[in-house]
Amino acid sequence: MLRTHTCGELRTSHVGQTVTISGWVQGVRDKGSLLWIDLRDRYGITQITIETENAAKDITDVARSLGREFVISVTGKVAERYSKSDKIATGDIEINPDKIVVLNPAITPPFTIEDETDGGDDIRMKYRYLDLRRNTVRKNLELRHRLAIETRNYLDKLNFLEVETPVLIKSTPEGARDFVVPSRMNPGEFYALPQSPQTFKQLLMVGGFDRYYQIVKCFRDEDLRADRQPEFTQIDCEMAFVEQEDILNTFEGLVRHLFKSVKGVDIPTLSRMTYADAMKNYGNDKPDIRFEMKFVALNEVVKGKNFKVFDDAGLVVGICAKGAAEYTRKQLDELTEFVKRPQVGATGMVYARYNADGTLKSSVDKFYNEEELKKWAAAFNAQPGDLILILAGDEHKTRKALSELRLEMGNRLGLRDKNTFACHWVIDFPMFEYNEEEGRLYAMHHPFTSPKPEDIELLNSNPGAVRANAYDMVINGVEIGGGSIRIFNKQLQSRIFDLLGFSKEEAQAQFGFLMNAFEFGAPPHGGLAFGFDRLCSLFGGAEGIRDFIAFPKNNSGRDVMIDSPSPISQVQLDELAIGLKK
Amino acid sequence: MLRTHTCGELRTSHVGQTVTISGWVQGVRDKGSLLWIDLRDRYGITQITIETENAAKDITDVARSLGREFVISVTGKVAERYSKSDKIATGDIEINPDKIVVLNPAITPPFTIEDETDGGDDIRMKYRYLDLRRNTVRKNLELRHRLAIETRNYLDKLNFLEVETPVLIKSTPEGARDFVVPSRMNPGEFYALPQSPQTFKQLLMVGGFDRYYQIVKCFRDEDLRADRQPEFTQIDCEMAFVEQEDILNTFEGLVRHLFKSVKGVDIPTLSRMTYADAMKNYGNDKPDIRFEMKFVALNEVVKGKNFKVFDDAGLVVGICAKGAAEYTRKQLDELTEFVKRPQVGATGMVYARYNADGTLKSSVDKFYNEEELKKWAAAFNAQPGDLILILAGDEHKTRKALSELRLEMGNRLGLRDKNTFACHWVIDFPMFEYNEEEGRLYAMHHPFTSPKPEDIELLNSNPGAVRANAYDMVINGVEIGGGSIRIFNKQLQSRIFDLLGFSKEEAQAQFGFLMNAFEFGAPPHGGLAFGFDRLCSLFGGAEGIRDFIAFPKNNSGRDVMIDSPSPISQVQLDELAIGLKK
Repeated sequence: MLRTHTCGELRTSHVGQTVTISGWVQGVRDKGSLLWIDLRDRYGITQITIETENAAKDITDVARSLGREFVISVTGKVAERYSKSDKIATGDIEINPDKIVVLNPAITPPFTIEDETDGGDDIRMKYRYLDLRRNTVRKNLELRHRLAIETRNYLDKLNFLEVETPVLIKSTPEGARDFVVPSRMNPGEFYALPQSPQTFKQLLMVGGFDRYYQIVKCFRDEDLRADRQPEFTQIDCEMAFVEQEDILNTFEGLVRHLFKSVKGVDIPTLSRMTYADAMKNYGNDKPDIRFEMKFVALNEVVKGKNFKVFDDAGLVVGICAKGAAEYTRKQLDELTEFVKRPQVGATGMVYARYNADGTLKSSVDKFYNEEELKKWAAAFNAQPGDLILILAGDEHKTRKALSELRLEMGNRLGLRDKNTFACHWVIDFPMFEYNEEEGRLYAMHHPFTSPKPEDIELLNSNPGAVRANAYDMVINGVEIGGGSIRIFNKQLQSRIFDLLGFSKEEAQAQFGFLMNAFEFGAPPHGGLAFGFDRLCSLFGGAEGIRDFIAFPKNNSGRDVMIDSPSPISQVQLDELAIGLKK
Repeated sequence: MLRTHTCGELRTSHVGQTVTISGWVQGVRDKGSLLWIDLRDRYGITQITIETENAAKDITDVARSLGREFVISVTGKVAERYSKSDKIATGDIEINPDKIVVLNPAITPPFTIEDETDGGDDIRMKYRYLDLRRNTVRKNLELRHRLAIETRNYLDKLNFLEVETPVLIKSTPEGARDFVVPSRMNPGEFYALPQSPQTFKQLLMVGGFDRYYQIVKCFRDEDLRADRQPEFTQIDCEMAFVEQEDILNTFEGLVRHLFKSVKGVDIPTLSRMTYADAMKNYGNDKPDIRFEMKFVALNEVVKGKNFKVFDDAGLVVGICAKGAAEYTRKQLDELTEFVKRPQVGATGMVYARYNADGTLKSSVDKFYNEEELKKWAAAFNAQPGDLILILAGDEHKTRKALSELRLEMGNRLGLRDKNTFACHWVIDFPMFEYNEEEGRLYAMHHPFTSPKPEDIELLNSNPGAVRANAYDMVINGVEIGGGSIRIFNKQLQSRIFDLLGFSKEEAQAQFGFLMNAFEFGAPPHGGLAFGFDRLCSLFGGAEGIRDFIAFPKNNSGRDVMIDSPSPISQVQLDELAIGLKK
């Protein structure tokens, strides 16, 4: 037996017992007559104390030979400490060793195994197994485990069945790019890795499974941004005999359960906002509603005063930043620079200060006198001390840019506390979005999403105006989950494929199995999926997802620890009947 | 709201309530004045009763238009039945409908949705979504869900962390053939799908995770036998600071918990058997010990009596089938045919009947008189009424053949009841097996398995004799799980790669990351993996695994429902920088 206890569990109640603990040497302090070893494992740190004058020579010799990250096993008596520490849970006791065994020595790690490490991203990824020893990283993955367990137990209580869907499926051109897997047994043919188990979960509903979930790996071969991984995990769910209301209630229940059980936080009933309102008030289909700062359209108020920028603009729209009237010229210049960044895309910014003394001062005083500015202030319901920020231009782009500015002001004013959680639903998404370049409609959610019954007539006359039974859950401005009520009728599904530019033959070849299934008694059904990596990161109060994944890939899709992907042998290529192109 | 209750939950306590239920039409019986609909969902069946003379005409009309598998919603009052049924849980009540809505009609399914269906395997797989509606199949997947939940809860209580390891990893030539995934971002390079998360779970131990598990998909591109799938699921586990004893205790605890919580069966402490004893007594490294019938070697007893077959044989070995002395000549001929099948491979079988009257009669009476046969009987400790069956030949092949005969006799004598569970450990496996064709050693478990410390010296002198700290859990003659204590020392790992024929360069290129990790303070560790598909099948009392997988593939690796694998476009091939060979 290599240990009787972990390094985190000994207390004064154990004093006098002989125990064995094992772990990593966090550090050794040698004061001559006294020598301390801090021994660490996943559960905590325990202090080993050696009075060198009284201790056997071999104990002292071994202790003095130890380096950082040596793996040792220590047997000895638990004693009460003379000077207790309240910094660690085992701070009341120490162990006086009778035996120290070096289980494995360690060479010096390339970075320190501390909460704040001196290792950069690249070296941490190459030695991920050392990075995982750090409390901060391990706690993230413990949180992930806890969220998974609580998700499963919640859904199990509601009769959801976890069903594993296949990983080797079929490539379909709709949506993102697939990873593919050549089939040796079927030369010239390929499996694809799933971007989501969408069609399978729908078939489970056709198959009478009623309530399905799965915490499941999904795959997308896309160029990676900082916060994207080629393989990612979803909490994937589907229910039969439901309407949108049932889904929203069930899954806001899940999220409230997770907040309560994992973080001890009570989340109120989720508010709901239509997509149209989200775009109008926040310029964003996933608004952060931890703070208000709604958009105010100003076309009626500002036009016709010879200010060409406003007069020519499709939209003049602004926000009111409470209490920011004292912003310096430098701060305002920073904001102007911010909105002019290519990612934001505005051409400039107009501001108006509502000074504490009641006077108003704008960057366009030449065109608008104080009387006019009073009207602006009234439109925003602004108070003395507030700062009004205005963008103008093409409607769509301007809303998008103002959304970025709003979030930036939220950050600057400290309105986006990561320990405050504002959760809500965005509903009534449009069914389609029009791609100008390709001159065709795309499904905003996916091709299996049901249009609102009252909008079905518009499919013929004005498909762009059709709203879908689709919904997103948004927490703190992050889309955490989304889904829809599905089509369960072959004719309607066929009509949607048609609108999306599929020929009858293409639709049949790719999704014939699903449309056929709808003919054999498909129930009404719907569902959603949560991005599990992002959910973990949100719960962990972090920005990125990478430290919530045990072995992530870098932005080139490489695992630098195992050095993958890598070349394969000619034998393998031959067996798969494929060749490399130069 | 499409339902207030499921089709399985209404009882007499609901009588008088107006409810809505939804589901599939299992059948309609029309007796003119009375008409019954059996409505089915996952939870049960509820009877809808219409008194046609009193019912609204549209209700009767709709009811008479219904076909099998139509999806309908029924609103009406719960009433107590005149004649109750104890065949179904809702048998005390019926619903008198006020409204019937056809949610989706159905064309006639290609096979009956009944426990015993008229559909063959091929058609069931093509319409798997209909097959899943059958109670028998759905119950298998409900069992799978329950086993997964109970596994997770047991391991969670013991501080195991579920950690997701990557699916896109690196191809290694050792072991079975990998599925590979071409990398678009790294042209000419490939990921591989994991055959198991072996190296990652070991790195988690190096990373201080202490206890890891995962219910995880694994992949092997092998020619498929009836009971193999290209993607399969493992309960994969690893622990640090453990010896073999700790692992055996922890995971026999898991299996006993599963039997208790899922099947209500108490399993006694698992017995242990060495690999050497398993081979000697049962000719099999996964013996079915629901019945005894141990091998008895007879070389000492039978040689030197001028029976050339026995005299020339490396091994003469037999079993004693209790109470089978009355076997007819026809039955004995069948057994002889059985052992001569190529899969079994014996050249013939010798038998001796120990008749109820105490006389002995053998198929080789010419060579052995009754006195000699008495010695045989004594060797087997046989009693009057028993039948002795003997094979002879090359030692290894003969043991293997007798093992098959023993299992066959177990079947014929009804000793292999699928509701009896005999679980045990087989331990002390050899480290290597020698491949005659290739003239090299292979790892019997895998290259990361630790030799027994007392056998390490043999690595140089006689590697074939080295025993490993490896163990299998066997239930009813099926290997349900297996694992080992791992090597955690770079030099020893390097030595093993060497013995397995890896050059230093190959070992470094493929497993350098793991050997490097061992230098930074790797703890002693070990683990095991259970075949989850097989475990489910065993719990379900079935032979095959296919009906415990929602969407299995056929023996050519095809999903015939979605018709995968399939060709991909030239654009996809070009993006991946690969081409097809003709």
